[in-house]
Amino acid sequence: MTFRWGVFGHGKISHAFRAAVDVIDDAEVVAVAGRDLGRASAYAAKNNIGAAYGSIADLLDAGGIDGVYICTPHTAHFAPAGPCLDAGIPVLVEKPMTPTAADTTRLAEQAASTGVFTMEAMWTWFLPIYTTVRSWIDDGRIGEVQQLSASFGFRAPFDPEHRLFSPDLAGGGVLDVGVYPIGLAQWLFGAAPETIAATGTVGRTGVDEHVVMAARYPGGQLAELSCAVRTTMTNQALIRGTEGHIVIPEFWRSESATLHVGDAEPETVTAPHRASGFEYQTEEVMACVAAGQTESPVMPLRESVRLAETCDEVRRQVGVRYPFETSGP
Amino acid sequence: MTFRWGVFGHGKISHAFRAAVDVIDDAEVVAVAGRDLGRASAYAAKNNIGAAYGSIADLLDAGGIDGVYICTPHTAHFAPAGPCLDAGIPVLVEKPMTPTAADTTRLAEQAASTGVFTMEAMWTWFLPIYTTVRSWIDDGRIGEVQQLSASFGFRAPFDPEHRLFSPDLAGGGVLDVGVYPIGLAQWLFGAAPETIAATGTVGRTGVDEHVVMAARYPGGQLAELSCAVRTTMTNQALIRGTEGHIVIPEFWRSESATLHVGDAEPETVTAPHRASGFEYQTEEVMACVAAGQTESPVMPLRESVRLAETCDEVRRQVGVRYPFETSGP
Repeated sequence: MTFRWGVFGHGKISHAFRAAVDVIDDAEVVAVAGRDLGRASAYAAKNNIGAAYGSIADLLDAGGIDGVYICTPHTAHFAPAGPCLDAGIPVLVEKPMTPTAADTTRLAEQAASTGVFTMEAMWTWFLPIYTTVRSWIDDGRIGEVQQLSASFGFRAPFDPEHRLFSPDLAGGGVLDVGVYPIGLAQWLFGAAPETIAATGTVGRTGVDEHVVMAARYPGGQLAELSCAVRTTMTNQALIRGTEGHIVIPEFWRSESATLHVGDAEPETVTAPHRASGFEYQTEEVMACVAAGQTESPVMPLRESVRLAETCDEVRRQVGVRYPFETSGP
Repeated sequence: MTFRWGVFGHGKISHAFRAAVDVIDDAEVVAVAGRDLGRASAYAAKNNIGAAYGSIADLLDAGGIDGVYICTPHTAHFAPAGPCLDAGIPVLVEKPMTPTAADTTRLAEQAASTGVFTMEAMWTWFLPIYTTVRSWIDDGRIGEVQQLSASFGFRAPFDPEHRLFSPDLAGGGVLDVGVYPIGLAQWLFGAAPETIAATGTVGRTGVDEHVVMAARYPGGQLAELSCAVRTTMTNQALIRGTEGHIVIPEFWRSESATLHVGDAEPETVTAPHRASGFEYQTEEVMACVAAGQTESPVMPLRESVRLAETCDEVRRQVGVRYPFETSGP
């Protein structure tokens, strides 16, 4: 039986999702929706998708879908998710799930009350190479894990009109790319940081353009994390243990990792994606839904709330507050 | 005319100093002193040094020296420096100059009041490769400098009896190796951090075994710095600019650096030491003294005070206070 996906949003990231669905035998993108029917229709025609809608309500009313992938800008994740859950349709929501921990918590509560499957699209955690990385760690190959160093940053041209630089659209490095190093630490240490200290550069549009963070996790491990939208970074993860270390190049989308232990020849494992890399998280959603689960055991909603809380705290320390954030809890 | 060095302390580091002096034509180590005459004498005999003394007073009373290099453990730098200054003898004091900013300030004040040359042995700053690094930066080869990532850490076996783990001897990672990444940032950005946030692991002897730091400098640049005595690090410095980056392997003792700009072939410059690498700071002292200067323009005492203040702050945040630190200012 084919899992019929509806996609809400038709930006660049929707193509990565379609490429992923294309390599999953029992899945298909059957409809696309956006806030502009004309653009959604043009997108559907160009991409050979059977149906197009101008709102989430129309997509849901038309029926015939088994799940929705929401890939609008951060600030437009929450609104379409609610109707999906109310309609009993599972959702995969792009990361960050919402721009604030308050809204992510609200969404998690709504998911719990409706009992409908909901997951943040933290695709990195599902990449095959991380199975290898986890097994190296679990097998004690690098001894006791002590530290993670991870960065993700690129140098975008400064453009006050672009989403990345817009406070109204929850721009800035932390939410755009910081979720990857912060999220990787959370995956690795199985917890949110006990303490995280951040300092950064806030540009003239009021969003964080460059942030460095020093964090400590409940198990005593430390992390140095950084992100930027105006500074090129290494985009590498380095996991250090007492006996060795693991290097994951381009860790957010990695297809390889290298194990270094003492003087032994480094051991590199490659695990190429079948398509864009989004196929693994997509298969996770389908498997969970088929099994009647309402959350992914790998990326349950409490992980999304933890991630959002950490991002909130980092933004607070750096001094970035979005105009739409209320002052109260 | 030969510059006659007296060395106070005869641990491992004194050998690196002797090796440096050996390659300087007009310098010689003529005497060694320590707190134990027997050990100092044995050391002098073994290393072909003409005279040995059991105290700084005896070394100074004997005369015939033009400068003293103090290389005892951190906590024993201050005491021998004073008599040298009072005797008008220039001093090169191992780093950290003293374990606290209060004592480093006291020593700087004493240096100022006596008008005798005094310098912290921040040998890294004088290595020839840093001339290349500075010129790349000054020539705008990497554009505007935005970030430094630097770490220095090694995995020492845990030994509560060792100096490294002793609070009484100002052990821990920050003072033993953290001074290098923190110092490099200070060299690079020409200032102490505007803010520095640190988190770390304090071991059961009460010293910092592993620390990660996120810092911001007055020019808006950021740094991620780390140090450890129980965790192996990369020990690399990575200087990122808007147009490229510079990698300095084993930056604390580096003999090479590589410039990366866009898609161009990386440019590696090597600048081997003539000996241990200590020869450049030693020549700096001799040149300054010959020119009648009381401080090095490269490493003046205000830089030492800044460095000590940063180390104090990092230790405070991590929660390490040495037993000998007084509570008041």
